[in-house]
Amino acid sequence: MTVRTVGVVGLGLMGKPMARALLRGGFTVPVFNRSPAAMDELAGDGAVPQPSARALAAASDVVITMLPDGPDVAAVLRGADGIFAGARPGLLAIDMSTIAPATAVELAADARARGLAFLDAPVSGGPEGAASAALTIMIGGEPADVERADPVFRALGKTITHCGPAGAGQVVKACNQLVVALNIAAVSEALVLAQRTGVDPQTVVRVLQGGLAASRVLELRGAAMAAGDFTPRGKASAHRKDLGIIMDLARQSGTVLPATAVVDQLFGDLIAQGHGGLDHTALMLAVAELNGIKLGRT
Amino acid sequence: MTVRTVGVVGLGLMGKPMARALLRGGFTVPVFNRSPAAMDELAGDGAVPQPSARALAAASDVVITMLPDGPDVAAVLRGADGIFAGARPGLLAIDMSTIAPATAVELAADARARGLAFLDAPVSGGPEGAASAALTIMIGGEPADVERADPVFRALGKTITHCGPAGAGQVVKACNQLVVALNIAAVSEALVLAQRTGVDPQTVVRVLQGGLAASRVLELRGAAMAAGDFTPRGKASAHRKDLGIIMDLARQSGTVLPATAVVDQLFGDLIAQGHGGLDHTALMLAVAELNGIKLGRT
Repeated sequence: MTVRTVGVVGLGLMGKPMARALLRGGFTVPVFNRSPAAMDELAGDGAVPQPSARALAAASDVVITMLPDGPDVAAVLRGADGIFAGARPGLLAIDMSTIAPATAVELAADARARGLAFLDAPVSGGPEGAASAALTIMIGGEPADVERADPVFRALGKTITHCGPAGAGQVVKACNQLVVALNIAAVSEALVLAQRTGVDPQTVVRVLQGGLAASRVLELRGAAMAAGDFTPRGKASAHRKDLGIIMDLARQSGTVLPATAVVDQLFGDLIAQGHGGLDHTALMLAVAELNGIKLGRT
Repeated sequence: MTVRTVGVVGLGLMGKPMARALLRGGFTVPVFNRSPAAMDELAGDGAVPQPSARALAAASDVVITMLPDGPDVAAVLRGADGIFAGARPGLLAIDMSTIAPATAVELAADARARGLAFLDAPVSGGPEGAASAALTIMIGGEPADVERADPVFRALGKTITHCGPAGAGQVVKACNQLVVALNIAAVSEALVLAQRTGVDPQTVVRVLQGGLAASRVLELRGAAMAAGDFTPRGKASAHRKDLGIIMDLARQSGTVLPATAVVDQLFGDLIAQGHGGLDHTALMLAVAELNGIKLGRT
């Protein structure tokens, strides 16, 4: 069955450019969003606003959800006015939000029991990646469903990986967020140590980028961190939410993650100090403040 | 004063290829090593074996030390049969070992008081970088001495950075080792989490390398880590030594480094379990064993 109509629920920082990429890809794109302003905006690009997720599902071959967290996704799928309620037989629901793997597994089983299909397909690459259809997409679910969704994924992303059964996409996304958080902590602690001992943090960024200490975090954000510039691209509050998913996953699976646990606490401190709206690299602020250091710009 | 003769003390994994790079660079290279076999080997390449560090200093314009740790460097410089004892006026001693910044500062002051000069110039890039004269060199000391040493540094490395006054090179090296250790911990915890939750660690390595989680550690060592292959390139025991320097520097400067402190403990566990001779990425072994997971190959 050829996919012609791809509904999008959740027109936030990510959902909006993703809906536009689907329109550019030639799909018909019904859209639904809690606040209608985003729908009106996208209608100008050719999207078709819907009165509910239920109505959207009734009009779609595939539905994409892009929402803040697992409970939002579960509500939009299972609600009385939700996607499962409106779905035609065989509808494929693709959740591209970052949620707990366990929730993804439950939703996949729930969809199957209703004669529907579900994939977890969280992304990395941020709003820029969404706007340029260059997202990295990590997929968990049945091979046949992944194949059916392939044209949709190709309209949205560049690196598209089927990671395993239901939930596996969310596990890989959790691993991704774990590594990004620790790489940010690494640069944060190194730059605070340099600053405290009188060495220019910009020199540290430049030198370290040339060797085994190099990372994408250092390359893309190191100079801004050294300058105390934490203009948000990935928000600290969203990354802490992801760390909650990671620590829950670790607890449920009986995994101990000592370094991640500490970095999760540092992110918690950052949020508690009121900095959740800054970039996630503002973790350096938390480390600096622990050390009684005030950074220049924030 | 043109530098023609560059003595090298310490012909280990690093010192030996560095002495060869200096010979290729056209310098006369007196050498001294505690065990004579390495001197004999280098004599075949044109180096000039010396009976003591003192004799070596008397024959050299510049002396390079490449030794395991600060106490070794201090002994070779200050000993009765050491470099300071044999030095002609104006000798420039360049310590390229990784040692405590405080020791480097003391040795620089000591050299100055004797009418000699001292630079701290630790490197990264390992034996391969030394063999191909592609080391990253991080320098602390007086600008005039850095300038005088420039032809020597150019024979050994590619990225040559004057980081600040005496000790600054060692501070930047400490920052480098901190970041490498945390980036290794990041990959280790992510891969153990994936393995525990049933997702293929090689998939995680491949997907993460495409986004903000990318790092040189992941790129160069991720696949081997996922395969449980910890063939030593940078030894775990040497990295733990560097973490000792970092934690001492933090304590002396009144800096708290919560994530680094935990990773230091994990490295300590790795050493305590008898794995100090493995690659530093074997930190993943320590994380796996904490989780009751036995990895395939070691």
